Amino acid sequence: MLGLMQDWPLLCHRVIDHAAINHPERCVISRSIEGPLHSITYPELRTRALKLAQRLARDGIGQGDRVATLAWNTWRHLEAWYGILGVGAIYHTVNPRLFPEQIVWIINHAEDRVMMTDLTFVPLLEKLADKLTSIERYVVLTDAAHMPKTTLRNAVPYEEWIAEADGDFAWAAFDENTAAGMCYTSGTTGNPKGVVYSHRSNVLHSMIAIQPDMIGLSSREVVMPVVPLFHANGWSLSLTGPMAGASMVMPGMKLDGPSVYELLNQFKVTCTAAVPTVWLMLLQHLEATGGKLPHLKKVVIGGSACPRAMTKTFQDVYGVEVIHAWGMTEMSPLGTVCTLKPEYAGLTGEARLDIQQKQGHTPFGIEMKITDDSDRELAWDGKTFGRLKVRGPAVAKAYFKGEGGEILDGDGFFDTGDVATIDRYGYMQITDRSKDVIKSGGEWISSIDIENLAVGHPKVAEAAVIGIRHPKWDERPLLVIVLKKDQTATKEELLGFLQGKIAKWWMPDDVAVVDEIPHTATGKIQKITLRERFRDYVLPTATAAE
Amino acid sequence: MLGLMQDWPLLCHRVIDHAAINHPERCVISRSIEGPLHSITYPELRTRALKLAQRLARDGIGQGDRVATLAWNTWRHLEAWYGILGVGAIYHTVNPRLFPEQIVWIINHAEDRVMMTDLTFVPLLEKLADKLTSIERYVVLTDAAHMPKTTLRNAVPYEEWIAEADGDFAWAAFDENTAAGMCYTSGTTGNPKGVVYSHRSNVLHSMIAIQPDMIGLSSREVVMPVVPLFHANGWSLSLTGPMAGASMVMPGMKLDGPSVYELLNQFKVTCTAAVPTVWLMLLQHLEATGGKLPHLKKVVIGGSACPRAMTKTFQDVYGVEVIHAWGMTEMSPLGTVCTLKPEYAGLTGEARLDIQQKQGHTPFGIEMKITDDSDRELAWDGKTFGRLKVRGPAVAKAYFKGEGGEILDGDGFFDTGDVATIDRYGYMQITDRSKDVIKSGGEWISSIDIENLAVGHPKVAEAAVIGIRHPKWDERPLLVIVLKKDQTATKEELLGFLQGKIAKWWMPDDVAVVDEIPHTATGKIQKITLRERFRDYVLPTATAAE
Repeated sequence: MLGLMQDWPLLCHRVIDHAAINHPERCVISRSIEGPLHSITYPELRTRALKLAQRLARDGIGQGDRVATLAWNTWRHLEAWYGILGVGAIYHTVNPRLFPEQIVWIINHAEDRVMMTDLTFVPLLEKLADKLTSIERYVVLTDAAHMPKTTLRNAVPYEEWIAEADGDFAWAAFDENTAAGMCYTSGTTGNPKGVVYSHRSNVLHSMIAIQPDMIGLSSREVVMPVVPLFHANGWSLSLTGPMAGASMVMPGMKLDGPSVYELLNQFKVTCTAAVPTVWLMLLQHLEATGGKLPHLKKVVIGGSACPRAMTKTFQDVYGVEVIHAWGMTEMSPLGTVCTLKPEYAGLTGEARLDIQQKQGHTPFGIEMKITDDSDRELAWDGKTFGRLKVRGPAVAKAYFKGEGGEILDGDGFFDTGDVATIDRYGYMQITDRSKDVIKSGGEWISSIDIENLAVGHPKVAEAAVIGIRHPKWDERPLLVIVLKKDQTATKEELLGFLQGKIAKWWMPDDVAVVDEIPHTATGKIQKITLRERFRDYVLPTATAAE
Repeated sequence: MLGLMQDWPLLCHRVIDHAAINHPERCVISRSIEGPLHSITYPELRTRALKLAQRLARDGIGQGDRVATLAWNTWRHLEAWYGILGVGAIYHTVNPRLFPEQIVWIINHAEDRVMMTDLTFVPLLEKLADKLTSIERYVVLTDAAHMPKTTLRNAVPYEEWIAEADGDFAWAAFDENTAAGMCYTSGTTGNPKGVVYSHRSNVLHSMIAIQPDMIGLSSREVVMPVVPLFHANGWSLSLTGPMAGASMVMPGMKLDGPSVYELLNQFKVTCTAAVPTVWLMLLQHLEATGGKLPHLKKVVIGGSACPRAMTKTFQDVYGVEVIHAWGMTEMSPLGTVCTLKPEYAGLTGEARLDIQQKQGHTPFGIEMKITDDSDRELAWDGKTFGRLKVRGPAVAKAYFKGEGGEILDGDGFFDTGDVATIDRYGYMQITDRSKDVIKSGGEWISSIDIENLAVGHPKVAEAAVIGIRHPKWDERPLLVIVLKKDQTATKEELLGFLQGKIAKWWMPDDVAVVDEIPHTATGKIQKITLRERFRDYVLPTATAAE
């Protein structure tokens, strides 16, 4: 027997309808790529999104077609996003920070038919255009006055292009499981893989993110997504902002300390979100200038682990609550958020920071477990660590075109590739990437824990720990060290520093001092390359064991 | 092209799973029907719900079967609710305040197979049992020690009955559109009509209700649903409490001022919800005893319009924020909530109360419009009033067994039967029931507005305004008055009092002084009966017009 409730599919463009109807005077303020600040109301933004949808439809773009954007956070990107969704096409937000060859690869893999680009990326695209064979038209997100001379195929300025439509258009209607958007994971191994969001997953994800214990938005907030839309839906803010009827501030391309500071204070932003790097620049600027943050109430920090000192500074010096969060492109992206449950809400000082270092807990709609190599579930004791797996309506079940094959376990859980602990109250903390963990005698050793300790040594500039094959223990840890300039140190001195700080069996079997540790484009340690370099390394303990 | 996100149906029992796993130490505290206070954690409650599901399954109760409850808000009712849902059966929360013949009618109409009843209602059910032919078993929500001798068919005490199951049971799996629950509208005309909620509609409704601008629950709240579960899911709190991981306090059967006050303060309740009548009793108790509400932060008031004085007293005297809300059984039930958007958030004093008298605005997931008799949409100007219609994933599309026929308009909107204004910021205010509005020369006159004015006359005890047939204007208003004891008043005196306070063409054409105005069981004016009584009444203006 079925319920007798209305069929009302969860479609993303219903969100901008809601904002336009119920929050008609609320604005989206942007720093434009051309320079000046720009303001638009939700009803105006919706009308322009409708024109865009109408204009796309006239070009024969509709359900199932992919439309790429290569753009910063501005009102034009937001309205393009809703317009693409609303005609039933699929937005494909391309990350301009990828290597050019990766950009070419993913656009071709996605078979994008239209490219909507900021002025910033026109020169880059002109260099790549020959290889981008699926793109039929380039729409430059500007007006005729700012339109550059360009060799790009069928290039048009956005403003004049959408002005060809009158907006007398209705959103397309379709099933909520229809594809809505695409985002490729940057992937440290192999080619990037395309995650395909549905309208349903996007809307549910936003309804999850908007809750008080998650990002928690109301119409009284002024929210600034510094995190770009091309980072998995701007961590939901492209939908939750309009869903809550919050004011929005879009920072454009200038994410440096002074620029972000100016917007935060001028527009009385109450809630913002970005990766630690952005906040490092802001905090440096504040320290250098004596700036204050009188309006900002909370800052969501994710993408990589938020340093403890950053949390402390935001909270103690500037009175801004830090909300540590974790997610993945495959999770739309929110997974856990570190708001404080009543068990922890009363903590202060270092004890509070201890908890805030964790990545947080899951809301309803995200299930989480940690397992060992035999897929047995491990205890939530805050100490035992295992593979972190997740399940939910906004978690990927496969990649575009089947890349990567079957990605769910027997119970339908997705392996995040992270290794984590979960405490008794459900707070998850990432301890490693699963491919970096060292498997010694059936037990796991966290490379990150040892690295964090080792860089505390006054002579050490950088540290990496990798597993080296061992005849008895399968793997044993090798500590790879870059020393600070003009320093020398013995193996005994370095290992002695770790003594008593880690379990005896975690102690690295050897130390290798190198000139440089390899990094990825985004600054992370490239352990694959490092493991490759030390592939044939023989530990002193290995010869002893043989 | 479909999205590639996980299939994760929105099932109600996933909510109690979430609470048990992620909020293992949070409690549901109840005032038991037997008397003492009782406390249980979410994991314990979930285990007992699983046992109940298992026990139901053993009796052959499964998908599509209806299980009635006739019970107050206690932990047992809550676990029964989840257990019934989790085996795929349909909870049917029966309102014990209905007339006995209505209770018989709806149980037979729903074809309930099992009745789970509080001790309170055993005598009532014994009287009705002969007519309740579909009920195979009565489960009395108590233990063997408190089990009364009873003639009820296959009667068992709940505790011993579920103890026959070991809890080694898995929730049933099924489509999210499967029927989850039933609730009959009390309906002032005709027979009660059954609303059939689905798992999807219940879960989406809760995700809507939990938002900061709606009821807004976090894990740090202690929430007390004084509104009973049999009032359309206890206004979502049966699901949003566990979804947020909030502590819950269940008041049992004692809803008088002292009892509610005791629980509010003893368990530091931060958020509660009920109809105005309950709060009137609480406020009277507070005034009589000098009591305070140091922990309570907000009180959700709905069911009928919240009196202005009540809002003022809660806020000014006790520092508790009033959240005026409106909904219907057919809406799961939340429709609008009167939290303050930035346009109104800065108001104070009487201006703030003016807004808080409105029923509020809709969240994402509820669409609203007002229309005239020709189904033309009317302006959102805060003045124009029309039929209030709603649409959304948690709004009914039909009643059980097709009662009432087609209930949606051409665009899929449900006519609420209310007449309302909506202002430019989306705040709805109910001005009348559509069947009570007086249609004079194609224009509408609000009966409630005139009644509210008329009772302001010092000699008037109660007032009702109804439409009387008129040869020229179709209908004209008649003011029906009950005078205070030992008072007399002329028609001219009473109408003179209204002069200048309402538009001229709203002025009643006549006044009828009566000894008594008929009321429904819940104390509302029974306008149907009143109209029936005045069916052949001839207005003085009618004879003049002929």
